[in-house]
Amino acid sequence: MIARQRLTKPDGRALVLYARRPFPPIEAAPAPGIEPGRDAHLRWHPLLREWVVYATHRQNRTFLPSVENDPLAVTIEERRPTELPRGPWEVAVFENLVPSFTGQAPSPPGAIVETRPAHGVCEVVVFTQEASGSLGALPLPRVRLVLDVWADRTEELGRLPSVAYVFPFENRGAEVGVTLHHPHGQVYGYPFVPPIAARELAAQQAHLEATGRGLLADHLAAEITDGRRLVYRDESAPAFVPVCARYPYEVWIAPRRAAPRLPDLTDAERDGVARALKSVLMKYDRLWNRPLPYILVVHQAPTDGRPHAEAHVHIEIYPAYRLPGRMKYAAASEVGAGVFTGDATPEDQARELQDVGIELT
Amino acid sequence: MIARQRLTKPDGRALVLYARRPFPPIEAAPAPGIEPGRDAHLRWHPLLREWVVYATHRQNRTFLPSVENDPLAVTIEERRPTELPRGPWEVAVFENLVPSFTGQAPSPPGAIVETRPAHGVCEVVVFTQEASGSLGALPLPRVRLVLDVWADRTEELGRLPSVAYVFPFENRGAEVGVTLHHPHGQVYGYPFVPPIAARELAAQQAHLEATGRGLLADHLAAEITDGRRLVYRDESAPAFVPVCARYPYEVWIAPRRAAPRLPDLTDAERDGVARALKSVLMKYDRLWNRPLPYILVVHQAPTDGRPHAEAHVHIEIYPAYRLPGRMKYAAASEVGAGVFTGDATPEDQARELQDVGIELT
Repeated sequence: MIARQRLTKPDGRALVLYARRPFPPIEAAPAPGIEPGRDAHLRWHPLLREWVVYATHRQNRTFLPSVENDPLAVTIEERRPTELPRGPWEVAVFENLVPSFTGQAPSPPGAIVETRPAHGVCEVVVFTQEASGSLGALPLPRVRLVLDVWADRTEELGRLPSVAYVFPFENRGAEVGVTLHHPHGQVYGYPFVPPIAARELAAQQAHLEATGRGLLADHLAAEITDGRRLVYRDESAPAFVPVCARYPYEVWIAPRRAAPRLPDLTDAERDGVARALKSVLMKYDRLWNRPLPYILVVHQAPTDGRPHAEAHVHIEIYPAYRLPGRMKYAAASEVGAGVFTGDATPEDQARELQDVGIELT
Repeated sequence: MIARQRLTKPDGRALVLYARRPFPPIEAAPAPGIEPGRDAHLRWHPLLREWVVYATHRQNRTFLPSVENDPLAVTIEERRPTELPRGPWEVAVFENLVPSFTGQAPSPPGAIVETRPAHGVCEVVVFTQEASGSLGALPLPRVRLVLDVWADRTEELGRLPSVAYVFPFENRGAEVGVTLHHPHGQVYGYPFVPPIAARELAAQQAHLEATGRGLLADHLAAEITDGRRLVYRDESAPAFVPVCARYPYEVWIAPRRAAPRLPDLTDAERDGVARALKSVLMKYDRLWNRPLPYILVVHQAPTDGRPHAEAHVHIEIYPAYRLPGRMKYAAASEVGAGVFTGDATPEDQARELQDVGIELT
C-alpha cells in the first residue's frame, strides 16, 4: 500500500501527493495564478475515422524555462507559487494547466464534421522533487512507486464516466518535444479508446478467439525461447527489443501473466516491471554515454468495466536516435503511409543493449 | 505528352529522364560506383497487424553532403560520377542506391513472425538540375511536369507485379530527415497497400456504399461551401486546410472530380493541381519568410487493376512547425496512442495562409 493525499488547488485543479510510507498532511496546494485552459474540442477526421483534438490555449505554453522558473519545483515562500507544495511527498500528480482534455471543456460550435467537447483528463506526474535527473536514474523503489502511481491513476481516472482509456506516458528529451526538463511524465484520460490501442486490442481479440490464448503472452513466450532480443531477463517481466521493432532500440516490457491493466499487477509483477524498466532506461543512457531521448507509453485495457480478457498490459519505449547524433525521423513513409522503415535489425540493436553493463541500485 | 528517355546505369539501376519537349538522346547513365543496397526485408507486426521494413544498408547513407559531393548534380568529367548525366532533361528519376524496397531483395531468414523479401521499388525524383531552390519556387510548368512524372511513375511502377501501391512524396527540410538539399522527392512502390492508405480507402468505400457518393468529393463540396479554410480557390482543384487538420498549416489539394489515380487526371485538372500546389508551397515559405519544412504525400488508388470507384486522388502536406522556431513534435499521444493534438484551429491557420500574398509565375 502506498500513501496518498488529495488536495484541491485554488484554481480548482486536483493535486495528489504520493509516498511509499504515510506522511504528515500537507496544508495547502499552490497554483501559479494562471487561469487553467479549457478551450479544447474534438473534430472527427472522416478519412481516417479518428478524433483530432484542438486545445488552442496550448500554443503559448511554457517552453524550457530556467531553473528559477521551474513550475515543477516546490513552492518557496519568497518566490512566486509553483505547481507543488513543500513536504515529504515523493511523487506528485496534478491536472495540467494547459490540458488537451478537460472536464471543463465547453461545447464547441458545429462544423462540417462532427465536433464534441474534449472531455477527459490530462495530468502531470512529477517523478521527484529534484529538478534534474531522469526516471531511469531514480532509485529502484522510486521507479516502483511511479508504477504504483500509474496504477492508482488508472483506477481513479478509469472510474470517471468521461474517461474510456487511461494512458500513462513519458516524453523524455527536448528532441521529442519536452518543454520542461524537471523529470516528469503525464497521464491522459481519453474520452475514447485511442486508435493505436484499439488496433492492438482488436488484434489481441482476434487471436484469443482463434486460439484461446493471449497474443502478447504467445509473443513473449516466443521471444523468450528465441532469446536473441532479450535485454533484461526476469521471471515475472522480461524486457526485449521486439522482433518487429518500428523504432531504433525500441523495447517492450510486459508481465509474463496477461494482466489487462496496471492495477491488476501483483506486487511481485510490479517489482519485476520496475526492475526491467530501470534496467532498460539505464542501458539507454549508457549506450552512448549521453541521455537517450525516448517516448514511453503504457498500453492497457480500456476502463469500460468489461473484463478485457484479450488485453495484456505492457510498456513500449521508442528512442529518438538511430546513431549518436542521428535522429530517427518519422518522414513520409511513416507519417503519410504508415510504413515504418528501420536501418538496423532488432537482433543487432538488442545485442548492443545486452552489451551495456549496468548495476541496479 | 511529355518526352522521356529510359536508360540503365552500369550497376543495373533504371534512370528515366523527362522534359516537356522532345530532347536529343543522352548516351549513357552514370553511377557513383557504389554497390546498390539490396538487404531489405519485411517482418509482420502482430499487435498492429502491419509490415515493418528493415533495410540495414541505409544506416550509413550519405548525410547532408557538401555541394561538391551532391550525388544529384549532373556528372562533370573531371569529378567522380554522380547519379545523373548532363543534358537538356528537366526532371530525372532513378532507383535509390539505398532502397527500402527493391526487386533484388533476397529471401530473409525465418523469425518468430512472418518475414518476406522487401520487394518493390524506391525511386528518387530530381525536380531540377539546380542544387538549390525548392519545388514551390520552380516555375509553374516545371511543377506541372513533376505532376506528370508522378503520374508516369504511377503507371510504370503500377504495372509491376511486385507493386501494389504507388506513393509519390517529398520530405522537405533537414527537420523532417532530408539528407540531401538538392530539390528532390521520392516515389515508393510498396508491395502491399500501406496501412494509412488502406484506412482511407476503407472509409471511402463505406461512404460510397452508404450514400452512393464519394467521401472526399462530399468533403470538398462542404469545404467550398463553408469557405473559411480555402487557401487557394480553383474550379478544378482547390487547396484548403482541412477542418480536421492533424498538423499545423496542414493542406489538402484535390481535384473536384473523384479521379482514383494521378494518371486519371485530365490536362486541365493537372494544371489546376499544379497551380494549387505551387500556390500553397509559396505561401508556406512566405508565411514567416523562411523555408517551411514539410512532408508532402500523394494518396491514390492501389494499382491492382480494379477500378476503385471509392478512391479520390489527393495531396496532403504536413508542415513541421507550429510557430516560427517551434517544431510540432509527434510525441506520446500521437505516436503511442494515435491521437493528434493541435494548438490552433484550422480556421485560424487557414486565415494566416489566406493573408499571405503571392503571384504565380
